[in-house]
Amino acid sequence: MATFQAFEYSRRIGAIKNAMADAQLDLLVVTSPPNMNYSVGYDAWSFYVPQAILLPLSGEPVWVGRAIDLECARHTTVLPDDALFGYDDSYLAKGRHGADYIADIVRATFPGARQIGVEMDAPFYTAQFHARLAAALPDRTLTDADTLINWVRLTKSHAEIDVMRQAGALTDIAMQRAIDAIEPGVRQSHIAGLIYEALIDGHPDYCGDVPDFQTLPMGSRTSAPHLTWTDERFAAGSACTLELGANRFRYHAPLARTVHVGPPPTELIDLSHVVEEGLVAALAAVRPGALASDVADAWNVVIARAGIEKPSRIGYSIGLGYPPDWGERTVSLIATDRTPLQPNMVFHLMLGIWGRASSYELSETFVVTAKGASCLSGLDRRLSVK
Amino acid sequence: MATFQAFEYSRRIGAIKNAMADAQLDLLVVTSPPNMNYSVGYDAWSFYVPQAILLPLSGEPVWVGRAIDLECARHTTVLPDDALFGYDDSYLAKGRHGADYIADIVRATFPGARQIGVEMDAPFYTAQFHARLAAALPDRTLTDADTLINWVRLTKSHAEIDVMRQAGALTDIAMQRAIDAIEPGVRQSHIAGLIYEALIDGHPDYCGDVPDFQTLPMGSRTSAPHLTWTDERFAAGSACTLELGANRFRYHAPLARTVHVGPPPTELIDLSHVVEEGLVAALAAVRPGALASDVADAWNVVIARAGIEKPSRIGYSIGLGYPPDWGERTVSLIATDRTPLQPNMVFHLMLGIWGRASSYELSETFVVTAKGASCLSGLDRRLSVK
Repeated sequence: MATFQAFEYSRRIGAIKNAMADAQLDLLVVTSPPNMNYSVGYDAWSFYVPQAILLPLSGEPVWVGRAIDLECARHTTVLPDDALFGYDDSYLAKGRHGADYIADIVRATFPGARQIGVEMDAPFYTAQFHARLAAALPDRTLTDADTLINWVRLTKSHAEIDVMRQAGALTDIAMQRAIDAIEPGVRQSHIAGLIYEALIDGHPDYCGDVPDFQTLPMGSRTSAPHLTWTDERFAAGSACTLELGANRFRYHAPLARTVHVGPPPTELIDLSHVVEEGLVAALAAVRPGALASDVADAWNVVIARAGIEKPSRIGYSIGLGYPPDWGERTVSLIATDRTPLQPNMVFHLMLGIWGRASSYELSETFVVTAKGASCLSGLDRRLSVK
Repeated sequence: MATFQAFEYSRRIGAIKNAMADAQLDLLVVTSPPNMNYSVGYDAWSFYVPQAILLPLSGEPVWVGRAIDLECARHTTVLPDDALFGYDDSYLAKGRHGADYIADIVRATFPGARQIGVEMDAPFYTAQFHARLAAALPDRTLTDADTLINWVRLTKSHAEIDVMRQAGALTDIAMQRAIDAIEPGVRQSHIAGLIYEALIDGHPDYCGDVPDFQTLPMGSRTSAPHLTWTDERFAAGSACTLELGANRFRYHAPLARTVHVGPPPTELIDLSHVVEEGLVAALAAVRPGALASDVADAWNVVIARAGIEKPSRIGYSIGLGYPPDWGERTVSLIATDRTPLQPNMVFHLMLGIWGRASSYELSETFVVTAKGASCLSGLDRRLSVK
């Protein structure tokens, strides 16, 4: 069973084909796991071997992957059986490559495709994958079509936003349980375990899949944004920045909050006020037609007043995701990105200030609506003191 | 704090440099997350952006990555501060690439390096990453050094095996809790949530990190090896194949078992006996000097007698892992792999028979010792009936 109804995939494939026509492509070799899912529903933990959706400008797409994953394709895609092609494990041996098999299917199924788009910077589309594909298709032209589908994904359907709101509800449950449970003497991993349990099974009506991305630095590790937990225990004076996000049908709704055990230093309280004010200002700048940079600028005005600088981006578009990242690799909320916001785009507005003395994280995932930003979370934004 | 003591990393870097000398490389650009961890300790969830360890044949390695991850490198590597180089977020914009910055550091820090090894088929070393690096270093030769470090990783140190045994203990706890909790009416995601909680925080003395790889197909989805759970409930007559593996300091110890709710069909019982007999035969073939193919052959003799064929590999070397995979991408247990086994190699022997009528999984992670295979798990191997 694919996640959505057939017409949702038809609509998506139509939009992808329009973009392919603009780019003058006859065929797209889709290798990014979220793009494979987006186009035909494919959802399995098989992206450690070469696999692809071959999506022609005219005609129907096919799935190509490892033979033992044919059943995964039968279970999750909208494709008929005769559109699924699997290679045996001899392709995993040294000197062979799944790309050779993919090239054979391109040749057999799409003999007329001359201009072929490939996702040059997609994780798992390795240098070797590309070199083998190019060598096996010398009479075709491979062009960079990286993020072509990612840009189609940017504006969500109502069905997608419903699913993201379910993810948001799971995220809130997990975050609240974590904040409630943090206290002196509790092992950091206890909080991490609670969070995972809640992200997966915390809601009575539906479950979450395992989230892609996880950072829960605690104690002195909060100065580093992308670390996880340890088996140390919380002590008075220690902080924890929680960045987590449930995943419902692989749609993510991230959220960040900061907790401090015991009375927080004045510096951290002040920082929390500035960041919250900045968040409110950034959200207030969201409306259809505003630019991504307008959101960043609104934030920058607030923090500049407090003498803080943050050169890194403050957010990114979000939706379908697989490891290594839950971002969409399209729009960034940063002063240099002039993309106009449109209704039903979704962003993770992620305000992280990492310093060796104090670190603070606060984020919201929001949908762009005609009335402005609609946040998926309903949780209190203040620094939690335990 | 790096996971191991400094001499462990010195030993590893020495072994890598020996392999580099054999391959006539002046410099290795290490981009695979487990290889970055193996060589200098780097451990952060930052591999969705370009980053590398630059490891010269003569001299000391350096870390290059995104500036906001410099603190992650300070926290987790054995490198001094002046060996860490970070690029700002302008490199994330369209038309720019972290590879350009990495090339600048190669040029500035290793001006004499002519023969440069790159990991052509490593996940995250994308076609674009390679193209940009090659374009920015026209006076150097980039050669394929894919899996050079993976092969060094194949034989573990005692310190590594101690950590893998800790992971094995966490895995057993999670598996046992899952098997105990499966019963009619229980939501599949409830079991998944319990498993994650136990993998992370199930042991009183130490914690696990989040596992890389997860497949817990239940019910009719067991015919497909790489699916996860849903929010359906267990019912009498449904089976569940559990493949899971704790991760301690990112060393994995996977394990698979099969559970059936209610009296199992005779066909499944028979299959479980054949697979267990095959597992015992495969383990008995393990000794230093035996070939990887000998293990597969021992298994194939048993299943052939029962009229079963399994063309896919029955296992692979394992140790350090990051998404998308916990395998090491070196030795496979398959009839065509003639690698001799040596003490302190570790393998996941994974016996999965996936059929539409019945599916069965049974696995063990074992260390090659002078006396034969030493399994990390102590759990009962039989089909569990609930």
